[in-house]
Formats: sequence, C-alpha cells, structure tokens
Amino acid sequence: MTKTAAIIGGGVIGGGWAARFLLMGWTVNVFDPDPEAPRKIGEVLDNARRSLPGLTDRAMPAEGQLNFVETISAAVTGADWIQESVSERLELKQKVFQTIQEHCPADAVIGSSTSGFKPSELQGCATRPEQIMVCHPFNPVYLMPLVEVVTTDKNSSDLTDKAKAIVAEIGMYPLHIKKEIDAHIADRFLEAVWREALWLVKDGIATTEEIDNAIRYGFGIRWAQMGLFETYRVAGGEAGMKHFMAQFGPALKWPWTKLMDVPDFTDELVDLIADQSDAQSGAHSIRELERIRDNNLVAMMRALKAQDWGAGALLNQWDGTPSAPDLSGAVKTVSRAVPLDWTDYNGHMNEARYLQAFGDATDRFMEIVGCDAEYIATGGSYFTAETHIRHIDEVHAGTRIHIETLCLEGAGKKMHLFHSMFDGERLLATGEHMLIHVSLETRRASEPSAAIATKLAAIAAIHADLPRPDGVGKAVGVKG
Amino acid sequence: MTKTAAIIGGGVIGGGWAARFLLMGWTVNVFDPDPEAPRKIGEVLDNARRSLPGLTDRAMPAEGQLNFVETISAAVTGADWIQESVSERLELKQKVFQTIQEHCPADAVIGSSTSGFKPSELQGCATRPEQIMVCHPFNPVYLMPLVEVVTTDKNSSDLTDKAKAIVAEIGMYPLHIKKEIDAHIADRFLEAVWREALWLVKDGIATTEEIDNAIRYGFGIRWAQMGLFETYRVAGGEAGMKHFMAQFGPALKWPWTKLMDVPDFTDELVDLIADQSDAQSGAHSIRELERIRDNNLVAMMRALKAQDWGAGALLNQWDGTPSAPDLSGAVKTVSRAVPLDWTDYNGHMNEARYLQAFGDATDRFMEIVGCDAEYIATGGSYFTAETHIRHIDEVHAGTRIHIETLCLEGAGKKMHLFHSMFDGERLLATGEHMLIHVSLETRRASEPSAAIATKLAAIAAIHADLPRPDGVGKAVGVKG
Repeated sequence: MTKTAAIIGGGVIGGGWAARFLLMGWTVNVFDPDPEAPRKIGEVLDNARRSLPGLTDRAMPAEGQLNFVETISAAVTGADWIQESVSERLELKQKVFQTIQEHCPADAVIGSSTSGFKPSELQGCATRPEQIMVCHPFNPVYLMPLVEVVTTDKNSSDLTDKAKAIVAEIGMYPLHIKKEIDAHIADRFLEAVWREALWLVKDGIATTEEIDNAIRYGFGIRWAQMGLFETYRVAGGEAGMKHFMAQFGPALKWPWTKLMDVPDFTDELVDLIADQSDAQSGAHSIRELERIRDNNLVAMMRALKAQDWGAGALLNQWDGTPSAPDLSGAVKTVSRAVPLDWTDYNGHMNEARYLQAFGDATDRFMEIVGCDAEYIATGGSYFTAETHIRHIDEVHAGTRIHIETLCLEGAGKKMHLFHSMFDGERLLATGEHMLIHVSLETRRASEPSAAIATKLAAIAAIHADLPRPDGVGKAVGVKG
Repeated sequence: MTKTAAIIGGGVIGGGWAARFLLMGWTVNVFDPDPEAPRKIGEVLDNARRSLPGLTDRAMPAEGQLNFVETISAAVTGADWIQESVSERLELKQKVFQTIQEHCPADAVIGSSTSGFKPSELQGCATRPEQIMVCHPFNPVYLMPLVEVVTTDKNSSDLTDKAKAIVAEIGMYPLHIKKEIDAHIADRFLEAVWREALWLVKDGIATTEEIDNAIRYGFGIRWAQMGLFETYRVAGGEAGMKHFMAQFGPALKWPWTKLMDVPDFTDELVDLIADQSDAQSGAHSIRELERIRDNNLVAMMRALKAQDWGAGALLNQWDGTPSAPDLSGAVKTVSRAVPLDWTDYNGHMNEARYLQAFGDATDRFMEIVGCDAEYIATGGSYFTAETHIRHIDEVHAGTRIHIETLCLEGAGKKMHLFHSMFDGERLLATGEHMLIHVSLETRRASEPSAAIATKLAAIAAIHADLPRPDGVGKAVGVKG
C-alpha cells in the first residue's frame, strides 16, 4: 500500500524531504502557507528528479503523488510520516506539533528538521510526546544520506524503530543519538568550523575562496570517505590510535583556535564575506551551483559505491538483492536510470557507459547461472573475449533503461550473450559478447562447474527457440 | 635536467614528499638517522606507486632515483628543493635549518612541513631567512593536492614564486598564506573539530564510529567538492549569502560548542577512544586501511576530474595540453597508467574501461582532425555508431598503456577507426569503431566541416599504406 508523508513547511529542507519521499513512491501532502511554496518545491523536485534516480543501480518505484493542501489537518490525516521543517522558533514548532497531533494517527512518526533544538524541548507541551523526535537531515535532502534521529526516554521504542526503518527504506542513514545535546552532532562541528572561518576572514588571513580551497583540496576529500577518527587512525600508522593521540594531544593546549571569542556579526563582516563569496562563485547562478553540486555529489557517491565504502556502501545496501529472474524468455538483467555521471560533452550517455551497463547485465546473467561472488572466490570466472556494440539511439541522464539478455550459446568454456538495451519499447543499443570461462589461478580457459554448465545449457535451450535479433554476428561497418 | 629534492626526516610525511618527487621524475636524497627509514619510506612508496600514476590521464615521467644519504650536507648539496619534516620542536628545526644552509644552494627552496609553527619562528636564527618558508602538506602527500605555503616579509618574491611553481609542477596546489598565523588555516579547522569530537566521545554522546558517520554521510561529502562558504552560498538559495548569514549568524551566540573548555587528555579518555576506534576499524590492518583510503581518494578525485571541479579541476590543469602528434604513421592517441578505479572483482581492468580508454583515443583523434571543443560548440560532432573490441591480454592497475590509432576510412560522414592498446610491445586489446558525423541540432548525420574533411582525408591516405592489423572487419565469435 502506498504510504503517505506530510511535509509541514516547504522551504529548501521541506522541499528536499518532499522530493525524496515522492521519488521513493510515497504520496506527499505539503502544507505551507507561502504562496510561492509550489514553485519552490517544484524547483527542488526538478533537481531531485535529475540526480536521485540514477544515483543507485536499481530502478526506483514509480513516482508518488504530490498534493498541496490548505491545512495541517488535511496534510497529516492518515499520514505515516510527518516532517516538520518550519522556522527555528520553539514556540512556533510546539504550536505546530499541537495542531498536528489533533489530526494525525497516533502511530505516525513526527520528525522535526530542527538543527538546534533538543527533542525534550520539542516534546515540551505535546499531547503525545512519544511521537515527536528530531530527524535532522542535510541539504540536499534528496541526495545526502545522513539523518540525525534524536530521541528521549519519552519516545516509544516501537516508534523509534519505525522511524529508523523508514529512514533506511527511503535510502537514508539513521544516526540514532540517544543522549540529546544542543545542535546534535554534525552541526556542532559545522558551527566550530564556521566560527573559526569567520575569524580568518575578519582578520584578513584568508578569503572565502582560500578557505574553501583549504578544505576541498585537503581534509574535505579525506573526511568524505573516512570521517575524522578513521582518517587519524590511518595517519597514526602502525603505532596505532594511542600513538596518534599522544602526538596530537598537546596541540589542544596551543592557541590554535579563537576559542574564547565570538566575532561580532557586524554589517562590515557580513559585507566582507558576501563580497568575497561573489568574487569566488558569482560567475555561476545559484541554480547552476546547485546542479554542479549535485553532479559532483552523485559522481563522488557513485565512485564510493564502486569501492563499496562510506556513503557508497549505504547505496549498495539499499540496492539489496535482485528479485528472482523470469527465465521463460529473454532474461531481464538490468533495470535502472541513467546516472548523471554517465553523460558526456555530447549531452548523452557516453559510449563506455553502454558497455558498463552491458557489463552489469553480463554480471547479473553470470550470477543467475551460478557464477556469483561465492563461485568466483573458488577460482573460476568468465572473462569477456570479444564485444560488438551497435548504438541505435541516444539516451540522456535520468531515463529509465532496461536490458534483455539472450544466451546464444552456453556450452563448454563458451558463453555467447546478446544484450538489447531499451528505453521502454525504444531500442537504444545492442551488445554481443563472447565470454570464456577461465581459471583465476592459471588465467587460462577452463571448464565451468557442472552446476553452471547445466544451468547455462538449460537457459540456452530455451533461448534457442526465440527469434535471433538483428545484428547478431555482424562486423563493424557491415550492413545488417 | 633532472631536479633534486632533499628530504630531511623520513616519516609518513617526509616519505610522502619523497614518493611524490620521485614519481614526478626528480632525484630524491633522503636523510633520516632512523635505521628503519628505508623500510618506512619503501612502504609509503609502494602505496604511492599503486595510486598516483593512474590518478591523472597523462603519462608520468620515468621515476627518478632514490638515494639514502648519511648526512644533511650530502642530501642538500646541489638540491633544488629541501623539505624539512623532522619532529615538531622549534629548536630542533632551527638547528636543522642552520646545517642545511651551510651546504645548500642559496636559490633552493627550503620548505617546512610544520603544522603549527609560523615561518617567522622557523626563520628565527637562520643565515638566510629569505629561503625558509612553511610548505605544509596533507597526508597522504602523494595524493592530496593541498600545500599551505606560508611566507613572511623576509622571503624573497623570487623564491616564493619558485616554490609555488614547483608545487604546481608536481601536481599540488600552493595555497599562499601571506599573513602568518598559528597552525595556518586547515589545521585550525581540524583542531576545532577534533576538540569538539573529544568532548562528544568523553560525554558519551557519540562513539568514534558515529562521529565518523555523521561526517562522511553528511557534510564531508559536501566539503570535498565545494568547501564551506560555497556550500552555504548554495544552501542560502536565491536570497544569497547575506540571507544565509542572517539565518545562521545568531546561532553563534548559542552554546553549541564547548568553546571555553579543553577536555583533559586523561588515560581514561585515550583508552576510550582507542577502544572505540578498534571496534570501528579494527577489522582492517593499517596497511589495508591505507589502501582502502587511497582507492577511495583516487576514485572520488577522478569522479571530480570528470566533472572538472575542485580537486578534479586541478588534475585537469596538470594534464595540460598534449604535445603535437606525429602523423607520419599510426597516431599515438593515449599514453597513461591504468588507474585504481578501473579494475574490478576479477582483479584486472574492467571491460567497460577498455572502451573508456578507446573512447579517449577517439576523442584525441577527433581533436587532432579539428573536431575539438570549439568545433563541437558550433554544433557538429562525431557519434559512435558501432564498436568491436577484442580482448587479447589482461592488464592491471598501475600498468602504463598506450593506444595507436589507424584511420581505416575518413570520408564524407564516416570516420572508421582502429585502436590497438599496448603495454609496451604486448598487445592488450583492439577497438574498431565506426563514427558518424552528426548535427547536434538535428541529431542526424551531416557532413563535417571542409577543414575536418581535408585533415581526415590526409591522415586516411597516409594510413592506407600501412598494413591492416589482425581483427579488422571481424564479427564476434568468428576466427580471424
């Protein structure tokens, strides 16, 4: 059954939540009195539609339905998840929770996007405090996995578990903080760095651009994959974490940060920073910067996905196990959206990515016949000896594609496959591939296991009765 | 002429410098009284050799010569660059600089890897203070681009310019800080975050693993590409940087960080962190973690390279312009090392990456005949219609490969190419490609410009006299 999310407050953060739920197939009810809300959320949704579906390697569900509603009660009635993203004013939030709880189911999760308030403060004068928790996301919500889920003793474990399960289901990571603290975890770090950065700009040590470069050419790239402690563990080398701390420890006593002072937030400082930021980034509009950012995030997260690490490992977990294949005809081996990082200067999917998709199709077909990771670990695998690709039609980022695979021959050491890539009914490309079973020890051709041979023969026998597609056995430049 | 770097102090940082200079073709003299230094530097060098050469898309120079020497004078005599990475003790560093300056050329750069001392402190009792500056790198030095170059009024502008030019030449980014400050820029941020993280662990709010996840699933990925200010500029949306600051500004007055206190660095706290770190990362040895980290960094930096942004844009700048091609025979279109992120679960270069390399070869050939970015912007390009790849032999990460390209036909709308990929003399694969010139407006076949047609015809005429390689015109599964 389709689930329903109520989005209370539709700015950048509320819009990001709306986009993520919607693209995950949920019905989304948005309440925001701002007449500009539909336009603003529409813009966030455009960004999400171009970047999220291709981030992972499995097809997303069909997009849910988006409703703009006039009242909080219309938004939350029957909702499974209610996300509050109104302004950071405690009395306002508490009032909104009261109205929400008058109308929403008692077993719905009520999450707050607050970056500063503690859940006990939010629960303050609530009818059912057990329902209210902090679910603090990070911009852009449709791409960043982190959600800080902060609870108190008043939250029921059932609702907390439900919240964490839903966060994971929509492709995010619930970081459960059980001991509440102002600003949770991540924003405490952001605040520490922001404060220090303001001093550096104010004191004329560095410009905003120099500070950004100091971060993104240095520790920013390290932190993106290992965070702080694991990075230092590695830096400490064989001597280990204790040794590292012994080295770094004393530096804490040195006057490296302006700890005791808060810079005055004068007009002068604001102007200085705004001017430097214009000089640094003003050549791009905010809309361009958003797209550049999303392209970068998708490309880096997909790079980590290929390494099965950090945010990329989360994506792999979300992919899960593919469902059992229907082997009565051509085998559906791939179903996915074209990711942002697969396109090139011609504006369409790059030729090498066709082969990457065909390679994924081959991997999936190998898995189906029993040549999976477990089998490969025993020392056998298939290597591609030859490939013939015909590009029939173009395809762009975001398009849902699927691949159907025929086994033309599957006997002895040979596995001869023919992949057809489609956008719906539209044929995009074909890939014909000769694979040879090899021993990973000798790196030479060898017979596959009996189990694989049997499975492969059975599929090849079924496929022998199917019509041979155009293009089989053709050479480059030869009309088919 | 081969340049010489003297590495004074050969720990993780000194070893990283040694590896980077060496892989950039420099002669490297290492002085370190530790008898373990050759082993330690050898290990850093192993890591560097597997990760750096494939990071970028141009071939690196031949590796330089590595010498371990017995004295500082033997290390620095005739050196162009001297890098000091001894322990963080000011008197020790000053003493080392005195010895260095007794023997080194007056026009050599003397860089210090210090993370805390100001250049004026380092220059304190030096014979030629103008020669000494902070050149603070980030671990792993062979991959991370950032170098904080901190100078004082005493530094000559000639030597400062020379230092910045050499830093860029070895593929790094010189961030010139002209107003010295304790800990420069980046380490002030690291210290602020480290301090706050210690509190969070000590107070039982979060474990080391939870803190790392809060960073790497959230702002770490954002900072890796845009840093702090540009990230907030985007988050501020259309209202701009001033609006963002107005929102975030007041939070500075809130008690979000433990600013006033420094946590006591007790044995108890050290043990707590070391134990949590073991639980988090103990399943991997430090050596494994180093390789995982380097794989991740290479993969993410290459992802940014494809987006031409951040650390990836630096790599593209370093690639520079390829030298003029020799058109008297087959055209050398690619010369590079196989990057870490091009290999797969079979331990060798993935099939899709062969096509990526062949696609790069095609792009380079297109450039050579005049179908470059400027021409493409006028609305014409070549699209690949068909591809036939034969995999002859395996290749692994780090191997230097090159591609030779034959133009089998280059007339009218057609460009028929045949690429051969080699490791030295060893043939790895061939790629036969039919490309069609298209109008980017109509997305249909069209004639190329007269200039391209002429250039292409001239190359095709030369190549017509060359022997046709094996495999031309073959179909999948047909013996050649």
